[in-house]
Amino acid sequence: MFRTVFRALREKSPLVHNITNYVTVNDCANMVLACGASPIMADDREEAAEITALCAGLNINIGTLNSRTVESMLISGKKANELGRPAVLDPVGAGASRLRRETALRLLREVRFAAVRGNVSEIRALALGSGAARGVDADDGITEEGLDGVVALAKAFSRSTGAVAAITGAIDVVADGETAFCIRNGHPMMSRVTGTGCQLSALTASFLAANPDRPLLAAAAAVCAMGLAGEIAHERLSPRDGNASYRNYIIDAVYNMTPEQLEEGARYEMR
Amino acid sequence: MFRTVFRALREKSPLVHNITNYVTVNDCANMVLACGASPIMADDREEAAEITALCAGLNINIGTLNSRTVESMLISGKKANELGRPAVLDPVGAGASRLRRETALRLLREVRFAAVRGNVSEIRALALGSGAARGVDADDGITEEGLDGVVALAKAFSRSTGAVAAITGAIDVVADGETAFCIRNGHPMMSRVTGTGCQLSALTASFLAANPDRPLLAAAAAVCAMGLAGEIAHERLSPRDGNASYRNYIIDAVYNMTPEQLEEGARYEMR
Amino acid sequence: MFRTVFRALREKSPLVHNITNYVTVNDCANMVLACGASPIMADDREEAAEITALCAGLNINIGTLNSRTVESMLISGKKANELGRPAVLDPVGAGASRLRRETALRLLREVRFAAVRGNVSEIRALALGSGAARGVDADDGITEEGLDGVVALAKAFSRSTGAVAAITGAIDVVADGETAFCIRNGHPMMSRVTGTGCQLSALTASFLAANPDRPLLAAAAAVCAMGLAGEIAHERLSPRDGNASYRNYIIDAVYNMTPEQLEEGARYEMR
Repeated sequence: MFRTVFRALREKSPLVHNITNYVTVNDCANMVLACGASPIMADDREEAAEITALCAGLNINIGTLNSRTVESMLISGKKANELGRPAVLDPVGAGASRLRRETALRLLREVRFAAVRGNVSEIRALALGSGAARGVDADDGITEEGLDGVVALAKAFSRSTGAVAAITGAIDVVADGETAFCIRNGHPMMSRVTGTGCQLSALTASFLAANPDRPLLAAAAAVCAMGLAGEIAHERLSPRDGNASYRNYIIDAVYNMTPEQLEEGARYEMR
Repeated sequence: MFRTVFRALREKSPLVHNITNYVTVNDCANMVLACGASPIMADDREEAAEITALCAGLNINIGTLNSRTVESMLISGKKANELGRPAVLDPVGAGASRLRRETALRLLREVRFAAVRGNVSEIRALALGSGAARGVDADDGITEEGLDGVVALAKAFSRSTGAVAAITGAIDVVADGETAFCIRNGHPMMSRVTGTGCQLSALTASFLAANPDRPLLAAAAAVCAMGLAGEIAHERLSPRDGNASYRNYIIDAVYNMTPEQLEEGARYEMR
Repeated sequence: MFRTVFRALREKSPLVHNITNYVTVNDCANMVLACGASPIMADDREEAAEITALCAGLNINIGTLNSRTVESMLISGKKANELGRPAVLDPVGAGASRLRRETALRLLREVRFAAVRGNVSEIRALALGSGAARGVDADDGITEEGLDGVVALAKAFSRSTGAVAAITGAIDVVADGETAFCIRNGHPMMSRVTGTGCQLSALTASFLAANPDRPLLAAAAAVCAMGLAGEIAHERLSPRDGNASYRNYIIDAVYNMTPEQLEEGARYEMR
């Protein structure tokens, strides 16, 4: 299942437009290249629509947003909708400031997203209109006990927005209004690398760009691929390696991952 | 001594707000994560104060500054002062342009910094109101002969600004108005990696965020930790490794450093 | 021949001003340091001219351009011309949007560049006033069959702009109006690392800054050095390494490259 969507990504090598933060943008570009797609970054209003029109998918990430880039996000999001290209939203820190929360909510009102990828506090901030984040690299720790609640949150969020909800943490939940994948790939040390969430959102946009008609499956495959890469990379760590080497190894693992490896390594259940 | 402040950092895992340049921001974020803290980057005036208020410390770095971000630096600096949270200033290239020098001087007038971290030409440019920098990654080469002069500069700068002065080079000097740590950790090759200074400033803000009442000790510990990481990382280099691998190994070394290792590896004298 | 220009770069260690995109800027800075030069990044109009005046060379890259930075590019380009310092242009994505094409064309009209480094679709977009890019990391695949056409394009572009044209792809062509180097260094996997083109432009600016009177030779040496680094780095890859490790190894290879190694490893013919 995941094999098919990953194979499509590798074969089509879609061009993906990213409007994203300057903190993790380089890793996002290398992650897009690692999975087989091609990235283009452009955030000026004068070219936003034109670049989106060239691309098979769009990734909007609100980290380090400002008034100039928010406008471009809206322009590109609407252009993607007009052309029927899938758009992904990463509401980084949506619980951390009014500006981020309101920007994310405005994007959700004015743009139809194919998927929204965030941690549980970010999605909660958007679902409930409030919330407090603890940093942007925080592990929100979705526990077995809390899992049913997160599944319900993901499905409700998906029903109200029309987007696949990808809520990531210790366990990841990827859901549309009806079906949830509960994914147990990944490693806790991923939260010690900046931008693994941003990279996953760029990866999700890449999977969706190659599989626009199967957003739930494509998003779940991306989340499994990222988690599996985190596992493979962790096994590779030597005693002197830390979070910087781990960062490289995760991208390397996606680069070398085969569709078959993803199919076999994915660990999930449906709820 | 350093053991205690590093242990506090690891235990408290403070959230640190960074307004910093787009050149080295990713490495700064991974360095903050490596030492045990959590980074958040935000530079828009609409959210600057709110993000600062969430955080235990603030790191302001003027590399690639512009009029939009300078305003946010002032807003965040004042908010940190209002809430009693330590703020660190990195006056990157303060000797290289009038804009940088005047911005740094304005920040020093309007914000009370707990520490200022720069190379000797940057601190001199602020102390004397002039100076000429040779790049931003330059090793200013504090020599044994010049050390007393740098100690005097650091103490005078600290007395006039109220901030701990951390002047880094071949030998590092960290001083308040009375006491100077002269630190001999580090390796010359660190000047061949972009942003080791920026990373140290982010690390200093992390140490101070966890130890707000001991700014001199916290800043000296951060400087020793960075230098020690440079030594450990250098021992790890294979013949084919260069400055890119070294960059990763330095962050890795901070990730794996224990408080005991820092205590034992720190090489300094008081003047 | 290349030995001499590389030796001059290592000996002079010129300061190079970069106005470049936020995607690959960190790698550009480390590449500049790797080759022996020193980078400074500054893009605000208030300091652009002053920073350029401090430097021996200028690198302008239009990726993630915006109205604020375009103005600084023009200011710095004119200042470099006024002072007789070599300026390099990287027209990233010049075929991808009207804004980029028009900005690149405006820069070419108002600034005299010593070299322009791009892939064939970017240079064609500027030569013909049109063109469609496929991403910014795309390998345009200059083939043996198409080589004569690219050589003719490069020479014509150089005659009309006065700049050395460095057109990179599977085969690289570096030409002034009379003479072309056809360079066969490099590895296809380089197109799977974001920003190898940007890094090459920064490297070219470094070579030119140290050899302002020999722009053709300096640009050809830079292109050979980058390709040779890609080869050396590729040999070093282990089975688990991917594009992220490759990125580091390429910079490492430039760091460790000797002028003699470049002289011996360069593979080119003149046309």
